[in-house]
This record gives sequence, C-alpha cells and structure tokens, in this order.
Amino acid sequence: MTDRIELRSDNTAGVAPAILAAVAAADAGPAAAYGDDPWTARLHERAAEVFERSDIHVFPVVSGTAANALGLSALCPPWGSVLCHESAHILRSECGATSLLSGGAVMRGLPGPGSKVDPAGLEAAFAATTWGDPHESQPSVLSLTLPTDLGAVYRPDEVTALASAAHRRGLRVHVDGARIANALVTLGCTPAELTWRAGVDVLSLGATKNGALSTDAIVCFDAEVAAGLRYRTKRSGHVASKLRFQSAQLEAYLTDGLWLSLAATANAAMTRLATGLTGLGLSLVVPPEANMVFVRLDDDAIDRAEAAGLDFYRIGPGLIRLVTSFRTTPDEIDEALRRLEVVVAA
Amino acid sequence: MTDRIELRSDNTAGVAPAILAAVAAADAGPAAAYGDDPWTARLHERAAEVFERSDIHVFPVVSGTAANALGLSALCPPWGSVLCHESAHILRSECGATSLLSGGAVMRGLPGPGSKVDPAGLEAAFAATTWGDPHESQPSVLSLTLPTDLGAVYRPDEVTALASAAHRRGLRVHVDGARIANALVTLGCTPAELTWRAGVDVLSLGATKNGALSTDAIVCFDAEVAAGLRYRTKRSGHVASKLRFQSAQLEAYLTDGLWLSLAATANAAMTRLATGLTGLGLSLVVPPEANMVFVRLDDDAIDRAEAAGLDFYRIGPGLIRLVTSFRTTPDEIDEALRRLEVVVAA
Amino acid sequence: MTDRIELRSDNTAGVAPAILAAVAAADAGPAAAYGDDPWTARLHERAAEVFERSDIHVFPVVSGTAANALGLSALCPPWGSVLCHESAHILRSECGATSLLSGGAVMRGLPGPGSKVDPAGLEAAFAATTWGDPHESQPSVLSLTLPTDLGAVYRPDEVTALASAAHRRGLRVHVDGARIANALVTLGCTPAELTWRAGVDVLSLGATKNGALSTDAIVCFDAEVAAGLRYRTKRSGHVASKLRFQSAQLEAYLTDGLWLSLAATANAAMTRLATGLTGLGLSLVVPPEANMVFVRLDDDAIDRAEAAGLDFYRIGPGLIRLVTSFRTTPDEIDEALRRLEVVVAA
Amino acid sequence: MTDRIELRSDNTAGVAPAILAAVAAADAGPAAAYGDDPWTARLHERAAEVFERSDIHVFPVVSGTAANALGLSALCPPWGSVLCHESAHILRSECGATSLLSGGAVMRGLPGPGSKVDPAGLEAAFAATTWGDPHESQPSVLSLTLPTDLGAVYRPDEVTALASAAHRRGLRVHVDGARIANALVTLGCTPAELTWRAGVDVLSLGATKNGALSTDAIVCFDAEVAAGLRYRTKRSGHVASKLRFQSAQLEAYLTDGLWLSLAATANAAMTRLATGLTGLGLSLVVPPEANMVFVRLDDDAIDRAEAAGLDFYRIGPGLIRLVTSFRTTPDEIDEALRRLEVVVAA
Repeated sequence: MTDRIELRSDNTAGVAPAILAAVAAADAGPAAAYGDDPWTARLHERAAEVFERSDIHVFPVVSGTAANALGLSALCPPWGSVLCHESAHILRSECGATSLLSGGAVMRGLPGPGSKVDPAGLEAAFAATTWGDPHESQPSVLSLTLPTDLGAVYRPDEVTALASAAHRRGLRVHVDGARIANALVTLGCTPAELTWRAGVDVLSLGATKNGALSTDAIVCFDAEVAAGLRYRTKRSGHVASKLRFQSAQLEAYLTDGLWLSLAATANAAMTRLATGLTGLGLSLVVPPEANMVFVRLDDDAIDRAEAAGLDFYRIGPGLIRLVTSFRTTPDEIDEALRRLEVVVAA
Repeated sequence: MTDRIELRSDNTAGVAPAILAAVAAADAGPAAAYGDDPWTARLHERAAEVFERSDIHVFPVVSGTAANALGLSALCPPWGSVLCHESAHILRSECGATSLLSGGAVMRGLPGPGSKVDPAGLEAAFAATTWGDPHESQPSVLSLTLPTDLGAVYRPDEVTALASAAHRRGLRVHVDGARIANALVTLGCTPAELTWRAGVDVLSLGATKNGALSTDAIVCFDAEVAAGLRYRTKRSGHVASKLRFQSAQLEAYLTDGLWLSLAATANAAMTRLATGLTGLGLSLVVPPEANMVFVRLDDDAIDRAEAAGLDFYRIGPGLIRLVTSFRTTPDEIDEALRRLEVVVAA
Repeated sequence: MTDRIELRSDNTAGVAPAILAAVAAADAGPAAAYGDDPWTARLHERAAEVFERSDIHVFPVVSGTAANALGLSALCPPWGSVLCHESAHILRSECGATSLLSGGAVMRGLPGPGSKVDPAGLEAAFAATTWGDPHESQPSVLSLTLPTDLGAVYRPDEVTALASAAHRRGLRVHVDGARIANALVTLGCTPAELTWRAGVDVLSLGATKNGALSTDAIVCFDAEVAAGLRYRTKRSGHVASKLRFQSAQLEAYLTDGLWLSLAATANAAMTRLATGLTGLGLSLVVPPEANMVFVRLDDDAIDRAEAAGLDFYRIGPGLIRLVTSFRTTPDEIDEALRRLEVVVAA
Repeated sequence: MTDRIELRSDNTAGVAPAILAAVAAADAGPAAAYGDDPWTARLHERAAEVFERSDIHVFPVVSGTAANALGLSALCPPWGSVLCHESAHILRSECGATSLLSGGAVMRGLPGPGSKVDPAGLEAAFAATTWGDPHESQPSVLSLTLPTDLGAVYRPDEVTALASAAHRRGLRVHVDGARIANALVTLGCTPAELTWRAGVDVLSLGATKNGALSTDAIVCFDAEVAAGLRYRTKRSGHVASKLRFQSAQLEAYLTDGLWLSLAATANAAMTRLATGLTGLGLSLVVPPEANMVFVRLDDDAIDRAEAAGLDFYRIGPGLIRLVTSFRTTPDEIDEALRRLEVVVAA
C-alpha cells in the first residue's frame, strides 16, 4: 500500500512546531483583548526590525482574502479600480471581496507573461484610461502578486519600476504576498527592499501557507491608511478578541528568520522537484522561482499519477499544479519523482 | 505586593486545556483546506447531535462581530432593518458591521428592562411601521442577545413568544449567543429548546469568551440561508484556509458537554460573587443570570477597588462591570470580596 | 359638489410657470451631455452669486433623498455615523439610502424640541461617544433639517453654534434643505448666512417641493468633497445625460429671487392658515415657521374634515399635517378654514 | 461661416415636441407624489399593451446607468457576476455602478464580434466557471446591449438562444436597451418578441436618447424582482416625488408608436449616412444596424472633418463615431456627406 504524497497546496500542511509552541506559550494568564496585549506590542517591534522601519502597522487577520480585500479597500476609493494581473487571486478567487469591502471598487486585469504585470501592459492600461472621467472607474491601486499565481517572482527593481509608474499616475501600490517569504528566499533581498523601499504601500503578509496556525497579516507602511484600517478590520469582523494568539504566531514567525527558514525548506524541495521533472523530460509552464510549479502532462498520465499516490491540483486539461511546503522532505520529492518516472514511462 | 484579580471580561482569559489539546491534535498530517477536512465534518456531526437536528450548518468565524454581521446579512435584505434592544452589541459596538456586510441594512433599537426586548416594545415597533412603504427600512430580522448585554437571560418561552410575534410579521430571528453556553447552564434547557425549537433561524455561537482559542461560529438552521452564507463568509475573508484548526476547537467545545462545564464554572463564580456583593450591601443593576454583573459604586470606591488590585470595566460614573470566566476560581472570588469589603468600609 | 383643497404636501403641486418655460427654452439645438452645456455653466454662475462664493459646486439630482444620501456619503467615512434629529427624514424616510451609498455608515438620532437638534443633546451625544474606539461608529457628520420635519426653523446663530460644536469634534456639517427657501423667507437672512458662513459644508438644496419640475441639487462648499461627488453622482446613476434640462430649472429657480417669491407665497398661505386654525381654537404642535403645520384634532373630526374636501396627511391618532405650496391661494385657505369651522363645530 | 452638424450622440438632441407637450399637460392640478398618480397608472397600462403582457412593472429613472445598475442589482446576488460583452457600457462606462448598488457583484467581459456576445463565448465562460465554488463570483446574469456599443443588433432568435443558454445555467437575463427603439425599427419585430418572449427578465428601456426630456425606465417582467426594485429605486434616490412628469413622458413615448417613429427618423438618417460613407470609399467597422456608425479615417482627415463643421466623437487613433438622432434631417446628412467628400479628397 502506497503512502500518498502531498503536493496540492502549502495550505494543507499543518503548523510549524515553533508556532504551535508560541500559541501554547501565549496562554499565560489574562491579557487585554483586541490587541492591547504584550504579544501584539512585541509583534510590532519585531515587524519594525524585520522591515527596518518604525512607521509600520500590522493587522493580523484570518485569511489572505481578508488581508487583500481590507488592504485594497483602504487604498482604493469606491469609484476606483485595482489594476492587477488577469490571473491574480484577488480578481479570480476572492468572490468579489474587494468590491464588497471597498463599497464597489472594481478590478481590471492586465496581461503579462508568467502572470507578471509587465511595464508595457501597465502603460497600455494607463493610456487606455480616460483620466478624470467619472464614467470610468479610475485606476487607483496597482496590486502585484509576489510570487505570482504561476510561481514567478518580481525582483526589487521590477517592483520599483512598476510602483514608480503607478505612483506617477497617482496610484497606490499593494503586494499580495501570500507566499512572500518564498520570494525573499529566492531573491536573497531584504523585506524592505522588496516592499516599501520599492514603493509598496500595503503588503498582505502570508503566514498560513508557510507554517502559521490561523493568521496572515496586513502590513501597512502608511500611517493615514493604517488609521482607516483600524476601523475597517473591526467592522468586517476581523479583529479577534483573543488577538494575542494571532500576534504570538506572527511574532514567532518573524523571529530569528523562522519565516525564511520555513520557506527555504519549501523552495529547496521545489528546486529538487523541478530538476527531477525536467530530467524526466516534462514541460514546465514557467521555471519555478518559489514553491509552486505547473506541469504539462497528458490526461492519462495525470490519472496514473494520481493513482500512484500523488496529490496535486488539476488546473485544466493536460495541466497540473504541484506545491511544496515547509513540511515537504527530500525523501518525499525523490519518491514522487520515482513514481512519476513510472507514470511517464507507461 | 497584591496579585491583580481579573474581572474585566471573559475574553481576557486564555484557552481551555482541552481546546488547546484539540488544536495540537489537529496538526496531524496534511488535510484539505477551506473545510473539506475530517475535523469540520465531525464538527457538523457533533453540532447535529447537540442541537438535535440534522439540517444544521456551521460556519466557524474568527469573531462574534463576524458571526453576527454575516448571519444578519444573510437574513436581512439590504432595504431591511434589524430590530434589537437599544443596548445590543450589534447596534452599539460593531461599528456598522451589519450595514457594511448587508449592503446597507440598518438597526432599530427597542427599549426593554434588563436589556431584554419585551413583547410590548416589539409590538409597538411593529405598530409604528409603515409596512410595505419603500421610504422606510422594513423590519426584517429580530435579533436577541442571549444573555443580554446586562447579563439577563431570556427563557425558552420568552424566545418563543418574541420569535412567534416576529414570524407573524414575516421577520426572521437571530440570536447573538456570544455567551449562550452561560445561558444554557442557567436555564437548564437544551440548546434546541433555546434556539430553533423556539423559532430561531440563525445563532451566533460564542466560543472564544468561553475557552476557545480563535473561533466562534454561525449556526444556521435554514438550508437556503446557509447556501448564501457559503459565499458571504468567503467574500468577507472569513473562511480560513486551515479551517480544521477552528473546527477542531469547536468539535472539542461541543463534545462531552465541555462548553457547558466551562460556562458552569464561570456562572458559579458569578453566583458566589453576586451573593458576596449583596452581602456587602452593594447595589446590582439587575440580578446576574449568567457570568456578568453591573454594580453601582461611588467613583472614589471605584478608584480604591482598582488600587486594591481588582481589574474590571468602568461603564460610566458610579457603575462598573464584573465578568467571570471559565478560569475564575472560588479563591479569586473570595479574595475579591475581601478586598471590596475593605473598599466599601473605607 | 365640493372641490377638494390640496394641503397634503408641497410636492403634489405642479410646476412654476417660469420653470416650465425655462425647460422649454432649453430645448434649443444640440448641447453636450452630462453637464458640459451653457445652462449648467450659468447655473454655477448663478449659484456663486446667490451664495456669494466662487468656490461652489452644484450637482443637480432627481430627488431629495439622492441629494441627502450622496452628500452625506461624501462627508462620512464608511465607519462613521451621521448625527441628526431622531425625527429626521434621512433617518426615518429614506430606507437606508445613506448606509447604502456610503458603504455602511449609520445614523444616530438625537432628541430635541420642535424636531431641532439642541446643543445640549449634541454635547450629550459627544460625551457618550468613545472617540477613536473602532468598536463604535465614529460621529463624522452633523445633519440639520432646515426647516425641520415639524416645520420649525434654525436661525443662523443656531446653525453656527451647532456647526461650531461639530467642527470642534472633527465632524462635517450637512443641511437637508428640502424646504430651505421657505426658511430663508422666514428668517430674512442671506443664503450664505444660513449655510457656509454658519459652517455648513454641504447643502441639499430643495427645488422640487417649491416649484421645480424634476430636480433638486447638492450644493457643496468644499472642493475636495466635490471632487468625490463627481464620481459618486455618476456611479449612483444620478448624472442625467440631458442635464441641461435640470440645470435650466435651477438657473431659473435662483434667478431674480424666484425661489424666494415662490416660498413666500407658500409661507404667507401657512401664516393665514395658522392664524385661522388658532382662531378656531385648534392646537398646533409647534408654531409653524415655514409652510407646514401639525394640528391636533380628534379622529372623528379628522374624518369629517376629509369628507368636507380637505386633503392632508394623517400622522397618527389625533394628529394631521397640513402643507401649503407656491400654488396655494388665499381663497383656498379661507375656504379650508370655513370648512374646518363647520367640522370643529360639529 | 459654416453651421456645425451634430453627430456626436443622440443624447445631445433636445426633446421631441410631443414629449415636451406631455410634460406641460401633466402640470394639471395637484397629484399624489411618488407614483400614485394617473399618469403613472396610464404608463403601466400603455406598457402592458405595448409589451403584450399584464405582469409588467415599470420604474421611471433618470439615467440609463440607473436603469442598468438597479435592474442588475435586483437580478444578481452580491456574490454573483454579470456576464456581458467586454465592450459593454455597464462594464466600461458606469464607474462601477452595479458593484455599488448590488453590494459587490462584479462584471465579467466576454469577447464577440460586433460587440455581440456570441453563443460560443458564453459557453466558454460557463465551461471556465467552477460552479458552486465560493472562491469565484458565480455567473448570475447575462446582460445584452441591444443595439450593441458598436451599433449592431441581436435578432430575436439570437436573444432567445443566448437567454436559453443562460437560463439553463440558472442565470437571469437583462437587456441594456438604451437604444432599443432603434433596434425594434430595424428588426420589425414586436417589443415582446425581442424581450420577455425571448427570455429577458429585465429591460433597461432607453427614452432619453430618443427624444425624452429626463427619463429612462426599468421594465421588469418578474413580479418578485419588481418587489425588490420598489425598495432599491427608493433607497438609491431614484424615485422622484413629482414622478408624474417622468411617467407622462414615457406614456407619450409609448403611445401611437412615437418611440418607433422617432427611432425610424434616426435610423433612416443613419442608413443615408452609411450609404454615403461607403460611396466615399470609407471603411465602417461594422455595418450600422441602428443609428450609430464607427468609421476609419486617418487622423489628418479627422481634424479636417472637425474643421469642416462636423461634430462627432474621436474613439481613438483613426477611428470616429457618428450618431444620428430623431432630430437629424436628410439635409444635414447630405451636407455632412458633401463636407466629408471634400475632406476625403484632400
């Protein structure tokens, strides 16, 4: 009987031991509710260190959708539009969350290879806009997914170029960083370089996909936007009363580089996997730069791979997605490749 | 040096050991995200048993505000109004959450002693309504807070009478049960008797204030309303990807009467406290029926009580609120009373 | 056979001849749509003269509800509350319009005699507010109805005092001026004195109740708020393509004091009526200061008055409302009083 | 000096004499406000005759955007998406109105030649949908623009085929009929054949572009949807108090075929124009089927055409739009063609 190998998503993994320990440790006597507690205070200190910036505002929330839609609603007026890649999670997989929480702002999808917004596409969108015309939702935010939904990564200079173009037109800049730790590991740059120093105003900081128990966070680099987020998080039901248990997770996550070491494990597994896949002659949609890969495989082979005990997502005919996590081991990757070799040979 | 005694709120307590253990136990290998996992399946089974009803739909969410505002938005059309007591948390302490998530529904506060909606007040509100007039937000939901914001409890026959009056006018019925376990312990009735058998359509099931780590839940007794809630919870960012860790808490909470035994501890502490307060000659706003009491005390005495190491909320001049939790011990109550005796004697 | 006498509302009257003529005159060849036309340009010039202020922004809209809800949505953040008298039209008769268009702002009703917000009530509301607490919708706008829903009028110094109190707390100030021309006639002050010089930021300028065909207007004294209103009016469907026909009405309305002379006719009729009513020994709820009066009458007498050919609104048991308009003649008032004399004598 | 010839849009024309006369005639004594008047009653009778259906509900509103966004908000749940052509006015030119009024529904643009949604594109959108997945806004309404934004027309059998495909998937069907009278003239079919008999649930009935003064209308063929629209129109400020003046316009519009004869004039002018343009060797984007044509012309020629006294819209480089109206005369068309002949010859 074959053990199944988990490659569906990084959110199917459990909790990193250090984070579970931090939660247990936070159960230490009474503490004021709604964030007026020592864990939340220390989280802000830790974030200030990690992002090298004292003017930083962290709002723990329970999902990436909450982080994205709340962050965007604080940046975008109700009559604005959010520009993003046409494959972006915020456009395709959040059921209109931003339109709801912003009071009716809309999304505008842009093309670009590797699910990356490219500067030419952004300029074309700007050129096609009738600025100041109240018939048209006004471009107000550029949102970058980093890594993208195809597993590619923007370099700091790419973020800077896109953010500068956006700022020139008066837009604010948001990063959906559901897997940003994986990107940081790949790039070897600092969190500051990839975010506010590159022109990012608000970051959705993913943690759940990378080992947290029950929290992501909005990281806001603008005090005025943060002032609105205090109300927006509360009135959407996203301020937990025992907030300390989310803050404790994030404090641990950002301490001693835990977030990066967890992501490094996932990325290393992906590199091992991608090398193996290429060795088997398989075709990857884009070279994986984080912990996700899309592989072309004929549908019979997909069925056989599943029967051989591999768990993954079917994206469409002839296309599957494989994701590694902080829990994925080299042995699992090697075993997955052995099984795929058989599948492909059949 | 005096240890402080915690009587501010039940949400300042930590986590019940059985719930923390359930969270740790749920970290058992990979599991599908967004609720397609064994813990969530078992939670539904457990809820069906506890509420004696197979047609039941449970949505774990991260806060009572989320449970209330989402539940109400699923019951109330955008042009409707929610009738509730004028002191209700949904009206006074949720920053317009229901108006946001419903697309503009409004609240209408009703009077009533002990923060309870009384039948006459409800009928007066109905009589003052111009039914069918599009100038006027149409009464669409009756929301009862149980226990109320003053710590009083509706009996099942009171819920039935109010719900029947509401149903006769076409309204749906919601219960904000942030502390409903405490009410159940007081009443000694079944969960079914206090909710759907009494005419309740949707219940906000509190768990965080009574020992959970990071979850409350919407419990919906109507399949059609639940169908909408699947989308409403998602698009407001309230579906955690690692939902199993919320479901596991709720499963433990509802298993072997844990929720009731935790509440019984809190209620017993309150009874001991209230008896002592009365013995000290202090005046209570209403007799506490759950785990909360409001006490009249002159402002100098309030300052002295705080200086003596009691933690509580100041509600206004001459009025404080004391809340017990599953963590409150008889010794703490006795010590609090000893200190108050000194305060009062001064 | 008795002719019926119209005293239900001023919006049952038809169109002032000069306004109908202006509409017909505006049908003069092609003109650009959406306000880029000479009539709209002249309307702004006229408004600037009448309000003695060049920084003025006028948005013709089709109803008072549109003017109020759009104006308030531009002044109030989604997490804010609008303070108004508990009898205000915006709170009771607009079906949650402001909550819809603002993205979830709420109303908070204040007490006060004659349906007027009084300074003490406003200060009490401020004192009861937990400023900066995200649990609580933050007071953001004070809205005054002028004349009030009971037909009373704020004097400029009263507006100034209330607006100053509001501004000190950071609120903006809105006036629902559905019948403001009637107030101006009563007060004999200038439009500027009653609005922006008294601290008003946005005025809902009523015109329909006072002789216009199909338009009211938002008059905004703040350029930044007006910038948002350009989008808000459009995206709520409130920018007519043939806007010139609304602008032409408002141009005529504000020209040569037409609005004031129309209102003077209505007010004079009300004075004649109120004097007569008092002479008949009838009791008025408040002395009418504009063109509306509430009269106490036993229910049998109300039925007889209706049978005698008077048209009016029944407000509740023993209470009716009578309204005069620019079309009401002294003869109609005298005939109404003759019939009421018979009714009362019966 | 050359007179300018108006070909920018049909909403730059004034008012049809019969409609202006109807407005003046409606100024006949007092009438109850908000639609409880004889003109509105007669409008419903007339609509019932014209659409051959007694179950019909007409809501006069002040703009096409209001008609579209309110009608769509009544058909689409907040978590739904509206499928429409990617060039549709509702998607590109209404500043997110539907997202605002629906509580966050979104648009999804479909491709198709001539700005027409084609059956294959619709089926492809259905196939790409994950039905029942709360991550994804669920397709809930198909909206057809008729005539399209390029001036093409769907035949009744095309509407029927698309509506049937939509209904099979549970969607409702909306028609943006800003210029539907022009389509009816072209097709020679009945209003019923092009709308409810073909499966249309709600029609935005344009009137302003075709001679009305200040009104369009929502025509609803579903009693339950209409029940919601009574509240939705009111709470968005779209119920004028003197509604009779809008109803009177629409009554006249639908009486004795006025709407069709006005449209016939515009269409005939377009046919004459298109024939002439083709005769001049100019290239049309699609053959005009109503009263609008898009013409390719080099940018120098565009400048010269403008200098020669033609008024039109520049759509982009090398592309202009010409629109005829009920006011356009054959002489104007002939003169426009004479000037264009010179422009082209230069």
